[in-house]
Amino acid sequence: MSKFWSAAIRDLTPYVPGEQPKVNNIIKLNTNENPFGPSPKVAHTIHSFESDRLRKYPDPDSAKLKSAIATYYSVKSDQVFVGNGSDEVLAHAFMAFFRQKQPMLMPTITYSFYDVYCNLYNIDYEHVALDEDFSINLKNYQRPNGGIIFANPNAPTGKALPLKDIENLLEINTESVVIVDEAYVDFGADSAVSLINKYPNVLVIQTFSKSRSLAGMRVGFAMGNSELIEGLERVKNSFNSYPLDMLAQDTAVAAIEDKTYFEHTTQQIIVNREWTNTQLEALGFIAVPSKTNFIFAKHRHIAGAELMGFLRTHNILVRHFSRPGIDNHLRITIGTLEEMQALISCLKKHPDLTVLE
Amino acid sequence: MSKFWSAAIRDLTPYVPGEQPKVNNIIKLNTNENPFGPSPKVAHTIHSFESDRLRKYPDPDSAKLKSAIATYYSVKSDQVFVGNGSDEVLAHAFMAFFRQKQPMLMPTITYSFYDVYCNLYNIDYEHVALDEDFSINLKNYQRPNGGIIFANPNAPTGKALPLKDIENLLEINTESVVIVDEAYVDFGADSAVSLINKYPNVLVIQTFSKSRSLAGMRVGFAMGNSELIEGLERVKNSFNSYPLDMLAQDTAVAAIEDKTYFEHTTQQIIVNREWTNTQLEALGFIAVPSKTNFIFAKHRHIAGAELMGFLRTHNILVRHFSRPGIDNHLRITIGTLEEMQALISCLKKHPDLTVLE
Repeated sequence: MSKFWSAAIRDLTPYVPGEQPKVNNIIKLNTNENPFGPSPKVAHTIHSFESDRLRKYPDPDSAKLKSAIATYYSVKSDQVFVGNGSDEVLAHAFMAFFRQKQPMLMPTITYSFYDVYCNLYNIDYEHVALDEDFSINLKNYQRPNGGIIFANPNAPTGKALPLKDIENLLEINTESVVIVDEAYVDFGADSAVSLINKYPNVLVIQTFSKSRSLAGMRVGFAMGNSELIEGLERVKNSFNSYPLDMLAQDTAVAAIEDKTYFEHTTQQIIVNREWTNTQLEALGFIAVPSKTNFIFAKHRHIAGAELMGFLRTHNILVRHFSRPGIDNHLRITIGTLEEMQALISCLKKHPDLTVLE
Repeated sequence: MSKFWSAAIRDLTPYVPGEQPKVNNIIKLNTNENPFGPSPKVAHTIHSFESDRLRKYPDPDSAKLKSAIATYYSVKSDQVFVGNGSDEVLAHAFMAFFRQKQPMLMPTITYSFYDVYCNLYNIDYEHVALDEDFSINLKNYQRPNGGIIFANPNAPTGKALPLKDIENLLEINTESVVIVDEAYVDFGADSAVSLINKYPNVLVIQTFSKSRSLAGMRVGFAMGNSELIEGLERVKNSFNSYPLDMLAQDTAVAAIEDKTYFEHTTQQIIVNREWTNTQLEALGFIAVPSKTNFIFAKHRHIAGAELMGFLRTHNILVRHFSRPGIDNHLRITIGTLEEMQALISCLKKHPDLTVLE
């Protein structure tokens, strides 16, 4: 606490990201990273990069990247916004759309950075409870609001909504912006990008950090009506003209153009997820049906914090949230098959865990 | 304008960066870029980078980079903050320190992004006039305020303040944060970093974009008392956990560790600046004494807009600000000697320009 801080800064509760251990011999299933490296075209882009280019500023508009994303999703370039990771895109979107007279709405259990943005920008918000089975029930969002955000699939539950539910909400909710955060959509859910030409108030946010394996490069993007994109550009250009460096722009283009590699690796992660799910259930876990690259599961008898600590002593990191309602769950990232086999083998060693027949 | 935008977004006037032309055969003296590429160690860092690392998130704290900066400037790592270009560092600093009851103070003529941040964050501010010769007179800042910012050397004038003037201000101004934006300090001015252990309210902001030739990588940093740094970290961690990608962190470390290259190239730019200054004065220009990698100058007879347009038709870009008081000036970046020779040769072709004997 310092007398020099702006008053509002004293009350902030910053987001705490998953641990990034500095040592190596660890199986890291705690931050939903992709177990496969990025496309080989990314390596080629980096290794053939002419470093003298770096003396100049990058393209402030990231035009080539926007064009590559627009081509991939069959939208127009002016329907695409890019930022320094989807966290920056989300932050700008909260500033651009959610500072309204009425409170904005979000699920009680979802990406915990949303609350943080609201506190940062002094945005009034209300939590909407999930159903018992962790489903987001969009009928509960049909009331006056200053905006709506939810993750689809949701995090940390991994559960996806049918597109029809989102469209039903958009038909009724026409006066505020609805943001669908699709960080994990490529692992089996349906994207709402198909709705952006029909509904001027839906903004879809995605990232290169998960399915495109570029977490280390920090590239996120949004797709929506060009007026929403213009709102984001106004905030971005009042904050930082050049949020994406040259290598971030170039590697993201390389990644999105390699559709074959993308499809192959996402499919492999889905296969590993289903294998892990079956194994966990055999060990007495109850898992939420996942459409993501992680599984949210709790054990019938053993506390989540205990299991997280046990795995940690065996050099396996998973994420545990000490929040009421989900404090017995673990969020387990889907890694390679070898990593998931190591996880299951390790769990079997837990003294309180009886293998069900 | 869209009904979906937050009200405050409608009133924003975003910053407009200097043009980044998409064609090549242009002499680009409009955005104060370094004419020399970054250190050869930067190229080595990029070309030996293992791209599989990118599947993981980068170190959210940029610990190695902070340590390298701390070593270079003989400060502690907890006295260093890093961000996605100094523009992001500045934005976070405005949020962290300047949202106060009293208006903050800045020069009338300075980096025009400062006004933009105030508008973005609804910060009350007052402009303080420069002296006739474009000097910042810090005696005019000795009054109650919610914070003070100035660039030293100032932009776009290029004029530097003596360190003693800054210390005199800090002795009196003890209740609000004083930010010294030192984007251009390495080209001949004195850094206020020597004051951060003595005055808990001074924050020094620098960039890798100019003297370290990494504009394309987006790395800026701040140095100050650890309590000020903690305030910045709180804002950063409420906005984006991972603002610097792996290659930005690694290349910035490589750049700051190559002191020999840094000293050689900055010295060459200073030599080129002094040559250009002499030539411009011989052509009837009046130049502000510069301690930066640019020269701010006006011609005795020919309007600034006219000269900018003339140079542009000859494929030479310089920056012109159509703001009262400086609208006859050009801001000319110092390039290679060949580029400066081309500029002078081109100016000599202007029909209204008589070479003085």
